[in-house]
Amino acid sequence: MITTHPKIPTTLIELEEIHSLIKPYINKTPVLSSDVINEMIGGELFFKCENFQKIGAFKARGAIHAVKRLTKQQLSKGVATHSSGNHAQALAYAAKLFGVKAFVVMPQNSSKVKMDGVKYLGGEIILCENNQVAREEKLAEVLQKTGAYFIPPYDHEWVIGGQATAAKELIEEVANLDFVVAPCGGGGLLSGTALASHILNQNIKVLGAEPENVNDAARSLASGKIEENNYNATTIADGLRTCLSEKTFQIIKQFVGAIFTASEKEIMEAMKITWSNLKITAEPSCCLPLAIILKNKNLFANKKTGIIITGGNVDLSGMFSD
Amino acid sequence: MITTHPKIPTTLIELEEIHSLIKPYINKTPVLSSDVINEMIGGELFFKCENFQKIGAFKARGAIHAVKRLTKQQLSKGVATHSSGNHAQALAYAAKLFGVKAFVVMPQNSSKVKMDGVKYLGGEIILCENNQVAREEKLAEVLQKTGAYFIPPYDHEWVIGGQATAAKELIEEVANLDFVVAPCGGGGLLSGTALASHILNQNIKVLGAEPENVNDAARSLASGKIEENNYNATTIADGLRTCLSEKTFQIIKQFVGAIFTASEKEIMEAMKITWSNLKITAEPSCCLPLAIILKNKNLFANKKTGIIITGGNVDLSGMFSD
Repeated sequence: MITTHPKIPTTLIELEEIHSLIKPYINKTPVLSSDVINEMIGGELFFKCENFQKIGAFKARGAIHAVKRLTKQQLSKGVATHSSGNHAQALAYAAKLFGVKAFVVMPQNSSKVKMDGVKYLGGEIILCENNQVAREEKLAEVLQKTGAYFIPPYDHEWVIGGQATAAKELIEEVANLDFVVAPCGGGGLLSGTALASHILNQNIKVLGAEPENVNDAARSLASGKIEENNYNATTIADGLRTCLSEKTFQIIKQFVGAIFTASEKEIMEAMKITWSNLKITAEPSCCLPLAIILKNKNLFANKKTGIIITGGNVDLSGMFSD
Repeated sequence: MITTHPKIPTTLIELEEIHSLIKPYINKTPVLSSDVINEMIGGELFFKCENFQKIGAFKARGAIHAVKRLTKQQLSKGVATHSSGNHAQALAYAAKLFGVKAFVVMPQNSSKVKMDGVKYLGGEIILCENNQVAREEKLAEVLQKTGAYFIPPYDHEWVIGGQATAAKELIEEVANLDFVVAPCGGGGLLSGTALASHILNQNIKVLGAEPENVNDAARSLASGKIEENNYNATTIADGLRTCLSEKTFQIIKQFVGAIFTASEKEIMEAMKITWSNLKITAEPSCCLPLAIILKNKNLFANKKTGIIITGGNVDLSGMFSD
């Protein structure tokens, strides 16, 4: 009998339970390395390639975990969320797996690729204005009308627990890692990564990476309270514009060593190096870890560092136009 | 004792011998699938991802095999070739593995990425004019001067035998394939693929795919003799501009069912679909199989088709400029 009460995993048994719950529905993604990149750093990097995950991003893990925990009754009216990105597709995918409806509130300016992805998976899109208040209001309306169960993009124990399984697989596959670096937006992946590392190997130092332009997590760690970004701040790593939530901040404060930042130029350079040498399409957001490692080589020289490549859902229409 | 006399593999024992000779030096590359692409076709496609091979392309297989077969004496003065592409890097890589020099004649207009790759691997580049005669003359000069052993890009039994191992791994991993489709330039990969399929499972139909603009292989099969391309014909799939050779043509004539062609627009569309859905960077040349499958869906509906993704060495500088 699995627990249906939301709980952050703190023991190996709990983490194993989460993993075994979602294993039938996810890909065990490969860990790639590049001699060229390793030579640049003078250390060993191991890229956990969640771009090969279902729906092209780690978000499938958290969404599937959350939906899997719901009782039949909780599930009966479907699930709902607001998201402009991969969580939208992840929840639509999870809902489809379990034969229920997914209602996704998406801002009007969401990328066509991500909207098409949600539709392809049978999710119902409800458009809203391009701001946080509009999103939440529209979601409240949808929940009221449909009775669907709300699965937030990161501020939830089940979501965080699901994301933790990416780092779990990486740590189990690559022995004796010194560091694991994950990008940080709302903090779902970073907090899950920190939990998994803490449970599996406390010698590993977990670091976060975020764009200079939206460095709310670095400022939050410094000030001790959740900081926000300037509402018109932009970055190519658009998946990382969101701020930490109560639940993710508590875990990050406790288990993450530091948050490093990188400039837009450094992110682009890391993205080019990733695509060229790993031969994968990686979203700008997941090139942050490599960007901060290239910027702080001394720290990572002669070390073994794991990196979560979070997703590969890039809008290529500009690249392949006639 | 391994044979040092060049021979096309025709038996399972010979093919296994080749594979075991190169296995310590190559990656066993993954086979990827995409639900979205399968739905487009109404059949199942299995992509053998040689973009994850050493040096980013299947060419490592043939070059390593050839160098591995040479006697100590034959190897003592190094190896040499002419190539504007992946074979240049492959031979430099193979030479480095066995601690000998690689001399590579490259046309002046070769891409910077590929030249940098050769240099990075310790190969010595000798530049020549941008035509076939200049290449061959310059190579003859280099061979004369250095005494290095010439390993051609495709017209050689060892090279063809090495390339055959990509299809061998694919056929061993995916049961009951109906088709295997490979792109065709000089025909090294296609002839190796055809040999492996013939040896391992004669129910598999092997097809070639090439750009309409340089459809020499299709015309060669039709006329029964090696046809050439208009010397100023261009295609985005620049790895496929070369013509068949005597050795590759003989095998293709015997074991390849047909050669299909695709337009530049169809190649671009297939490339976009590949990058978007498989989340890999695939060279234009290796998007030909998907292009011809999309164009002839009826043939591949309800079938299992293997595809060799030949490489991922794309010049991304235009895509990531500031």
